[in-house]
Amino acid sequence: MVRTAARQPVPTRRADAERNIAAILEAGTRLLSADPTASVADIAKAAGVGRVTLYGHFPSREALVDAVLDHTVDMADAALGDGEIDTAPAPEAMAGLLRSSWEILDRHRRLFVAADRVLATERIREHHDRPLRRVERLIARGQDDGDFRTDLPLPWLVTTFFSIIHSAAQEREAGRLSPEEVEQVLTKTMLSLLAPKP
Amino acid sequence: MVRTAARQPVPTRRADAERNIAAILEAGTRLLSADPTASVADIAKAAGVGRVTLYGHFPSREALVDAVLDHTVDMADAALGDGEIDTAPAPEAMAGLLRSSWEILDRHRRLFVAADRVLATERIREHHDRPLRRVERLIARGQDDGDFRTDLPLPWLVTTFFSIIHSAAQEREAGRLSPEEVEQVLTKTMLSLLAPKP
Repeated sequence: MVRTAARQPVPTRRADAERNIAAILEAGTRLLSADPTASVADIAKAAGVGRVTLYGHFPSREALVDAVLDHTVDMADAALGDGEIDTAPAPEAMAGLLRSSWEILDRHRRLFVAADRVLATERIREHHDRPLRRVERLIARGQDDGDFRTDLPLPWLVTTFFSIIHSAAQEREAGRLSPEEVEQVLTKTMLSLLAPKP
Repeated sequence: MVRTAARQPVPTRRADAERNIAAILEAGTRLLSADPTASVADIAKAAGVGRVTLYGHFPSREALVDAVLDHTVDMADAALGDGEIDTAPAPEAMAGLLRSSWEILDRHRRLFVAADRVLATERIREHHDRPLRRVERLIARGQDDGDFRTDLPLPWLVTTFFSIIHSAAQEREAGRLSPEEVEQVLTKTMLSLLAPKP
Protein backbone atom coordinates (compact mmCIF):
# COMPACT_ATOMS: atom_id res chain seq x y z
CA MET A 1 0.00 0.00 0.00
CA VAL A 2 1.65 3.25 -1.11
CA ARG A 3 -1.60 5.20 -1.03
CA THR A 4 -0.78 7.18 2.10
CA ALA A 5 2.72 8.05 0.94
CA ALA A 6 1.61 8.90 -2.58
CA ARG A 7 -1.13 11.15 -1.24
CA GLN A 8 1.08 13.00 1.19
CA PRO A 9 1.76 16.07 -1.02
CA VAL A 10 -1.94 16.52 -1.83
CA PRO A 11 -3.09 18.05 1.47
CA THR A 12 -0.23 20.53 1.26
CA ARG A 13 -1.03 21.54 -2.30
CA ARG A 14 -4.69 21.81 -1.36
CA ALA A 15 -3.83 23.88 1.71
CA ASP A 16 -1.72 26.17 -0.50
CA ALA A 17 -4.59 26.55 -2.94
CA GLU A 18 -7.04 27.34 -0.14
CA ARG A 19 -4.68 29.90 1.32
CA ASN A 20 -4.21 31.52 -2.10
CA ILE A 21 -7.95 31.61 -2.79
CA ALA A 22 -8.63 33.17 0.63
CA ALA A 23 -5.91 35.80 0.03
CA ILE A 24 -7.28 36.58 -3.46
CA LEU A 25 -10.86 36.98 -2.19
CA GLU A 26 -9.74 39.16 0.71
CA ALA A 27 -7.62 41.38 -1.57
CA GLY A 28 -10.38 41.45 -4.20
CA THR A 29 -12.97 42.60 -1.63
CA ARG A 30 -10.62 45.30 -0.33
CA LEU A 31 -9.45 46.63 -3.72
CA LEU A 32 -12.79 46.49 -5.56
CA SER A 33 -14.58 48.15 -2.61
CA ALA A 34 -12.13 51.07 -2.99
CA ASP A 35 -12.04 51.19 -6.81
CA PRO A 36 -14.50 49.32 -9.08
CA THR A 37 -11.96 49.37 -11.93
CA ALA A 38 -9.23 47.52 -9.94
CA SER A 39 -7.46 45.12 -12.30
CA VAL A 40 -6.73 41.40 -11.94
CA ALA A 41 -3.00 42.26 -11.83
CA ASP A 42 -3.53 44.68 -8.91
CA ILE A 43 -5.55 42.09 -7.01
CA ALA A 44 -2.95 39.34 -7.62
CA LYS A 45 -0.20 41.67 -6.38
CA ALA A 46 -2.14 42.67 -3.24
CA ALA A 47 -2.88 38.99 -2.54
CA GLY A 48 0.81 38.10 -2.93
CA VAL A 49 0.17 35.54 -5.68
CA GLY A 50 1.28 35.39 -9.31
CA ARG A 51 -1.15 36.18 -12.12
CA VAL A 52 -0.89 32.61 -13.40
CA THR A 53 -1.95 31.31 -9.96
CA LEU A 54 -4.89 33.74 -9.86
CA TYR A 55 -6.05 32.79 -13.37
CA GLY A 56 -5.70 29.13 -12.35
CA HIS A 57 -8.45 29.70 -9.78
CA PHE A 58 -10.46 32.45 -11.55
CA PRO A 59 -10.20 32.21 -15.36
CA SER A 60 -11.48 35.75 -16.04
CA ARG A 61 -11.99 39.10 -14.31
CA GLU A 62 -15.73 38.38 -14.48
CA ALA A 63 -15.26 35.06 -12.62
CA LEU A 64 -13.12 36.83 -10.02
CA VAL A 65 -15.67 39.64 -9.46
CA ASP A 66 -18.42 37.01 -9.22
CA ALA A 67 -16.48 35.09 -6.53
CA VAL A 68 -15.59 38.28 -4.60
CA LEU A 69 -19.26 39.34 -4.60
CA ASP A 70 -20.31 35.90 -3.35
CA HIS A 71 -17.66 36.02 -0.61
CA THR A 72 -18.71 39.52 0.51
CA VAL A 73 -22.43 38.72 0.58
CA ASP A 74 -21.67 35.59 2.67
CA MET A 75 -19.68 37.65 5.17
CA ALA A 76 -22.39 40.32 5.23
CA ASP A 77 -25.06 37.70 5.77
CA ALA A 78 -23.16 36.30 8.76
CA ALA A 79 -22.58 39.82 10.14
CA LEU A 80 -26.24 40.82 9.80
CA GLY A 81 -27.37 38.08 12.15
CA ASP A 82 -31.01 37.80 13.10
CA GLY A 83 -31.16 40.54 15.73
CA GLU A 84 -34.70 41.67 16.40
CA ILE A 85 -36.03 40.28 13.10
CA ASP A 86 -38.43 37.89 14.83
CA THR A 87 -39.22 39.93 17.94
CA ALA A 88 -39.56 43.73 17.36
CA PRO A 89 -42.73 45.08 15.68
CA ALA A 90 -42.30 44.43 11.93
CA PRO A 91 -42.02 48.09 10.79
CA GLU A 92 -39.38 48.77 13.45
CA ALA A 93 -37.49 45.56 12.57
CA MET A 94 -37.68 46.58 8.86
CA ALA A 95 -36.16 50.00 9.62
CA GLY A 96 -33.36 48.25 11.55
CA LEU A 97 -32.74 45.73 8.76
CA LEU A 98 -32.60 48.53 6.17
CA ARG A 99 -30.13 50.44 8.35
CA SER A 100 -27.75 47.51 8.88
CA SER A 101 -28.05 46.31 5.25
CA TRP A 102 -27.31 49.83 4.00
CA GLU A 103 -24.26 50.15 6.27
CA ILE A 104 -22.76 47.02 4.72
CA LEU A 105 -23.78 47.86 1.15
CA ASP A 106 -22.45 51.41 1.45
CA ARG A 107 -19.07 50.12 2.62
CA HIS A 108 -18.90 47.82 -0.43
CA ARG A 109 -20.74 50.17 -2.82
CA ARG A 110 -17.88 50.24 -5.33
CA LEU A 111 -17.63 46.46 -5.36
CA PHE A 112 -21.33 46.43 -6.21
CA VAL A 113 -20.66 48.95 -9.02
CA ALA A 114 -17.83 46.67 -10.30
CA ALA A 115 -20.19 43.66 -10.19
CA ASP A 116 -22.96 45.60 -11.94
CA ARG A 117 -20.57 46.36 -14.83
CA VAL A 118 -19.71 42.73 -15.58
CA LEU A 119 -22.59 40.65 -14.17
CA ALA A 120 -26.28 40.51 -15.10
CA THR A 121 -28.67 41.87 -12.43
CA GLU A 122 -30.26 38.41 -12.18
CA ARG A 123 -26.86 36.94 -11.23
CA ILE A 124 -26.29 39.64 -8.58
CA ARG A 125 -29.76 38.88 -7.25
CA GLU A 126 -28.91 35.13 -7.04
CA HIS A 127 -25.90 35.96 -4.85
CA HIS A 128 -28.31 37.72 -2.46
CA ASP A 129 -30.69 34.77 -2.12
CA ARG A 130 -29.59 34.02 1.43
CA PRO A 131 -29.88 37.54 2.92
CA LEU A 132 -33.14 38.05 1.02
CA ARG A 133 -34.64 35.03 2.79
CA ARG A 134 -34.38 37.10 5.99
CA VAL A 135 -36.21 40.00 4.28
CA GLU A 136 -38.89 37.58 3.11
CA ARG A 137 -39.35 36.14 6.61
CA LEU A 138 -39.73 39.62 8.09
CA ILE A 139 -42.23 40.82 5.46
CA ALA A 140 -44.27 37.59 5.86
CA ARG A 141 -44.41 38.13 9.63
CA GLY A 142 -45.44 41.77 9.14
CA GLN A 143 -48.25 40.56 6.88
CA ASP A 144 -49.37 38.01 9.52
CA ASP A 145 -49.30 40.69 12.22
CA GLY A 146 -51.38 43.06 10.05
CA ASP A 147 -48.51 45.60 9.88
CA PHE A 148 -47.73 45.10 6.17
CA ARG A 149 -49.98 45.00 3.10
CA THR A 150 -51.15 41.67 1.67
CA ASP A 151 -52.49 42.93 -1.67
CA LEU A 152 -49.11 42.59 -3.44
CA PRO A 153 -47.27 39.26 -3.94
CA LEU A 154 -44.65 38.52 -1.24
CA PRO A 155 -41.85 37.79 -3.81
CA TRP A 156 -42.51 41.18 -5.40
CA LEU A 157 -42.22 42.98 -2.05
CA VAL A 158 -38.88 41.19 -1.45
CA THR A 159 -37.72 42.32 -4.93
CA THR A 160 -38.58 45.95 -4.15
CA PHE A 161 -36.33 45.74 -1.05
CA PHE A 162 -33.43 44.47 -3.19
CA SER A 163 -34.12 46.93 -5.97
CA ILE A 164 -34.59 50.04 -3.80
CA ILE A 165 -31.52 49.49 -1.63
CA HIS A 166 -29.36 48.84 -4.71
CA SER A 167 -30.81 51.91 -6.45
CA ALA A 168 -29.74 53.93 -3.43
CA ALA A 169 -26.18 52.60 -3.88
CA GLN A 170 -26.23 53.68 -7.55
CA GLU A 171 -27.61 57.12 -6.60
CA ARG A 172 -24.94 57.57 -3.94
CA GLU A 173 -22.22 56.60 -6.40
CA ALA A 174 -23.64 58.99 -9.03
CA GLY A 175 -23.80 61.79 -6.42
CA ARG A 176 -27.60 62.10 -6.63
CA LEU A 177 -28.17 61.17 -2.96
CA SER A 178 -26.15 62.61 -0.10
CA PRO A 179 -24.76 60.29 2.61
CA GLU A 180 -26.89 62.06 5.24
CA GLU A 181 -30.22 61.53 3.51
CA VAL A 182 -29.90 57.87 2.37
CA GLU A 183 -31.07 56.15 5.53
CA GLN A 184 -34.22 58.26 5.95
CA VAL A 185 -35.03 58.04 2.22
CA LEU A 186 -34.74 54.24 2.29
CA THR A 187 -36.87 53.84 5.42
CA LYS A 188 -39.64 56.17 4.21
CA THR A 189 -39.70 54.57 0.76
CA MET A 190 -39.82 50.98 1.97
CA LEU A 191 -42.28 51.55 4.83
CA SER A 192 -44.76 53.47 2.66
CA LEU A 193 -44.53 50.70 0.11
CA LEU A 194 -45.24 48.05 2.77
CA ALA A 195 -47.96 49.91 4.71
CA PRO A 196 -51.38 48.20 4.61
CA LYS A 197 -53.83 49.92 2.27
CA PRO A 198 -56.96 51.37 3.90
CA MET B 1 -12.12 73.68 -59.46
CA VAL B 2 -12.40 69.93 -59.15
CA ARG B 3 -13.93 70.07 -55.68
CA THR B 4 -17.45 69.17 -56.78
CA ALA B 5 -16.31 66.28 -58.98
CA ALA B 6 -13.87 64.97 -56.37
CA ARG B 7 -16.60 65.08 -53.72
CA GLN B 8 -19.21 63.33 -55.81
CA PRO B 9 -18.68 59.84 -54.33
CA VAL B 10 -18.86 61.10 -50.76
CA PRO B 11 -22.63 61.61 -50.45
CA THR B 12 -23.17 58.14 -51.91
CA ARG B 13 -20.77 56.50 -49.50
CA ARG B 14 -22.37 58.44 -46.67
CA ALA B 15 -25.85 57.42 -47.80
CA ASP B 16 -24.68 53.77 -47.94
CA ALA B 17 -23.30 54.04 -44.42
CA GLU B 18 -26.53 55.58 -43.12
CA ARG B 19 -28.60 52.87 -44.80
CA ASN B 20 -26.36 50.16 -43.32
CA ILE B 21 -26.51 51.67 -39.83
CA ALA B 22 -30.31 51.95 -40.01
CA ALA B 23 -30.57 48.30 -41.18
CA ILE B 24 -28.21 47.12 -38.40
CA LEU B 25 -30.14 49.00 -35.68
CA GLU B 26 -33.48 47.71 -36.98
CA ALA B 27 -32.21 44.10 -37.15
CA GLY B 28 -30.50 44.47 -33.75
CA THR B 29 -33.73 45.70 -32.12
CA ARG B 30 -35.72 42.86 -33.67
CA LEU B 31 -33.26 40.03 -32.92
CA LEU B 32 -32.23 41.13 -29.40
CA SER B 33 -35.88 41.70 -28.41
CA ALA B 34 -36.53 38.03 -29.33
CA ASP B 35 -33.29 36.57 -27.91
CA PRO B 36 -30.90 38.46 -25.60
CA THR B 37 -28.02 36.18 -26.67
CA ALA B 38 -28.34 37.03 -30.42
CA SER B 39 -24.82 37.27 -31.88
CA VAL B 40 -23.20 40.03 -33.93
CA ALA B 41 -23.02 37.58 -36.87
CA ASP B 42 -26.80 36.91 -36.68
CA ILE B 43 -27.53 40.64 -36.59
CA ALA B 44 -25.20 41.36 -39.55
CA LYS B 45 -26.89 38.59 -41.54
CA ALA B 46 -30.41 39.84 -40.73
CA ALA B 47 -29.36 43.39 -41.67
CA GLY B 48 -27.94 42.17 -44.99
CA VAL B 49 -24.46 43.56 -44.30
CA GLY B 50 -21.08 41.86 -43.90
CA ARG B 51 -19.50 41.44 -40.48
CA VAL B 52 -16.62 43.73 -41.47
CA THR B 53 -19.13 46.49 -42.32
CA LEU B 54 -20.92 46.01 -39.01
CA TYR B 55 -17.68 46.10 -37.00
CA GLY B 56 -16.71 49.23 -38.97
CA HIS B 57 -19.70 51.00 -37.40
CA PHE B 58 -19.87 49.16 -34.05
CA PRO B 59 -16.45 47.89 -32.91
CA SER B 60 -17.80 45.42 -30.29
CA ARG B 61 -21.00 43.59 -29.33
CA GLU B 62 -21.20 45.94 -26.34
CA ALA B 63 -21.09 49.02 -28.62
CA LEU B 64 -23.78 47.47 -30.81
CA VAL B 65 -26.08 46.64 -27.87
CA ASP B 66 -25.53 50.17 -26.53
CA ALA B 67 -26.54 51.71 -29.88
CA VAL B 68 -29.57 49.41 -30.25
CA LEU B 69 -30.76 50.34 -26.75
CA ASP B 70 -30.36 54.04 -27.53
CA HIS B 71 -32.27 53.62 -30.81
CA THR B 72 -35.11 51.72 -29.10
CA VAL B 73 -35.47 54.19 -26.24
CA ASP B 74 -35.61 57.07 -28.77
CA MET B 75 -38.38 55.32 -30.71
CA ALA B 76 -40.20 54.52 -27.48
CA ASP B 77 -39.90 58.11 -26.32
CA ALA B 78 -41.43 59.35 -29.57
CA ALA B 79 -44.20 56.71 -29.37
CA LEU B 80 -45.07 57.60 -25.76
CA GLY B 81 -45.96 61.17 -26.65
CA ASP B 82 -47.32 63.48 -24.00
CA GLY B 83 -50.93 62.29 -23.94
CA GLU B 84 -52.68 63.34 -20.75
CA ILE B 85 -49.43 63.94 -18.85
CA ASP B 86 -50.21 67.62 -18.29
CA THR B 87 -54.00 67.45 -18.07
CA ALA B 88 -55.41 64.39 -16.25
CA PRO B 89 -55.20 64.26 -12.42
CA ALA B 90 -51.59 63.26 -11.60
CA PRO B 91 -52.33 59.78 -10.10
CA GLU B 92 -54.46 58.90 -13.14
CA ALA B 93 -51.79 60.24 -15.54
CA MET B 94 -49.16 58.21 -13.61
CA ALA B 95 -51.20 55.01 -14.00
CA GLY B 96 -51.47 55.74 -17.74
CA LEU B 97 -47.76 56.46 -18.09
CA LEU B 98 -46.86 53.23 -16.23
CA ARG B 99 -49.21 51.26 -18.50
CA SER B 100 -47.80 52.66 -21.77
CA SER B 101 -44.17 52.47 -20.56
CA TRP B 102 -44.66 48.87 -19.48
CA GLU B 103 -46.22 47.92 -22.84
CA ILE B 104 -43.10 49.15 -24.63
CA LEU B 105 -40.63 47.72 -22.09
CA ASP B 106 -42.38 44.34 -22.09
CA ARG B 107 -42.11 44.14 -25.88
CA HIS B 108 -38.36 44.83 -25.67
CA ARG B 109 -37.82 42.99 -22.35
CA ARG B 110 -35.17 40.67 -23.80
CA LEU B 111 -33.26 43.58 -25.35
CA PHE B 112 -33.19 45.10 -21.87
CA VAL B 113 -31.88 41.77 -20.49
CA ALA B 114 -29.19 41.78 -23.21
CA ALA B 115 -28.25 45.37 -22.31
CA ASP B 116 -28.20 44.55 -18.58
CA ARG B 117 -25.66 41.77 -19.26
CA VAL B 118 -23.10 44.00 -20.98
CA LEU B 119 -23.82 47.56 -19.79
CA ALA B 120 -23.63 49.14 -16.33
CA THR B 121 -27.01 50.14 -14.82
CA GLU B 122 -25.82 53.77 -14.77
CA ARG B 123 -25.31 53.63 -18.56
CA ILE B 124 -28.77 52.12 -19.11
CA ARG B 125 -30.17 54.87 -16.91
CA GLU B 126 -28.40 57.54 -19.04
CA HIS B 127 -30.11 56.18 -22.15
CA HIS B 128 -33.44 56.78 -20.39
CA ASP B 129 -32.75 60.42 -19.51
CA ARG B 130 -35.21 61.73 -22.08
CA PRO B 131 -38.27 59.58 -21.18
CA LEU B 132 -37.47 60.08 -17.47
CA ARG B 133 -37.79 63.86 -17.92
CA ARG B 134 -41.47 63.20 -18.64
CA VAL B 135 -41.77 61.16 -15.42
CA GLU B 136 -40.08 63.99 -13.53
CA ARG B 137 -42.46 66.59 -14.97
CA LEU B 138 -45.48 64.51 -14.00
CA ILE B 139 -44.28 63.85 -10.44
CA ALA B 140 -43.43 67.55 -9.97
CA ARG B 141 -46.93 68.52 -11.10
CA GLY B 142 -48.48 65.93 -8.77
CA GLN B 143 -46.47 67.47 -5.94
CA ASP B 144 -47.71 70.98 -6.87
CA ASP B 145 -51.30 69.74 -7.02
CA GLY B 146 -50.96 68.10 -3.58
CA ASP B 147 -51.52 64.62 -5.07
CA PHE B 148 -47.95 63.33 -4.49
CA ARG B 149 -45.68 63.43 -1.46
CA THR B 150 -43.07 66.17 -1.07
CA ASP B 151 -41.08 64.63 1.81
CA LEU B 152 -38.78 62.64 -0.53
CA PRO B 153 -36.40 64.24 -3.09
CA LEU B 154 -37.87 64.49 -6.61
CA PRO B 155 -34.81 62.82 -8.29
CA TRP B 156 -35.22 59.86 -5.93
CA LEU B 157 -38.90 59.46 -6.82
CA VAL B 158 -37.93 59.49 -10.53
CA THR B 159 -35.31 56.81 -9.79
CA THR B 160 -37.88 54.58 -8.08
CA PHE B 161 -40.02 54.76 -11.27
CA PHE B 162 -37.03 53.61 -13.38
CA SER B 163 -35.99 51.00 -10.85
CA ILE B 164 -39.43 49.50 -10.20
CA ILE B 165 -40.47 49.20 -13.85
CA HIS B 166 -37.11 47.60 -14.74
CA SER B 167 -37.38 45.23 -11.76
CA ALA B 168 -40.75 44.15 -13.13
CA ALA B 169 -39.06 43.33 -16.46
CA GLN B 170 -36.47 41.19 -14.64
CA GLU B 171 -39.20 39.46 -12.61
CA ARG B 172 -41.23 38.71 -15.75
CA GLU B 173 -38.14 37.32 -17.49
CA ALA B 174 -37.31 35.16 -14.43
CA GLY B 175 -40.92 33.93 -14.29
CA ARG B 176 -41.59 35.45 -10.86
CA LEU B 177 -44.39 37.76 -12.10
CA SER B 178 -47.16 36.62 -14.42
CA PRO B 179 -48.11 38.77 -17.45
CA GLU B 180 -51.61 39.31 -16.00
CA GLU B 181 -50.47 40.74 -12.69
CA VAL B 182 -47.66 43.11 -13.80
CA GLU B 183 -49.75 46.16 -14.62
CA GLN B 184 -51.69 46.16 -11.34
CA VAL B 185 -48.55 45.42 -9.30
CA LEU B 186 -46.71 48.35 -10.92
CA THR B 187 -49.59 50.80 -10.43
CA LYS B 188 -50.19 49.84 -6.78
CA THR B 189 -46.47 49.95 -5.98
CA MET B 190 -45.80 53.32 -7.59
CA LEU B 191 -48.95 55.05 -6.38
CA SER B 192 -48.47 53.96 -2.77
CA LEU B 193 -44.91 55.18 -2.96
CA LEU B 194 -46.04 58.58 -4.29
CA ALA B 195 -49.09 59.09 -2.06
CA PRO B 196 -48.80 62.07 0.31
CA LYS B 197 -48.08 61.06 3.89
CA PRO B 198 -50.75 62.01 6.45
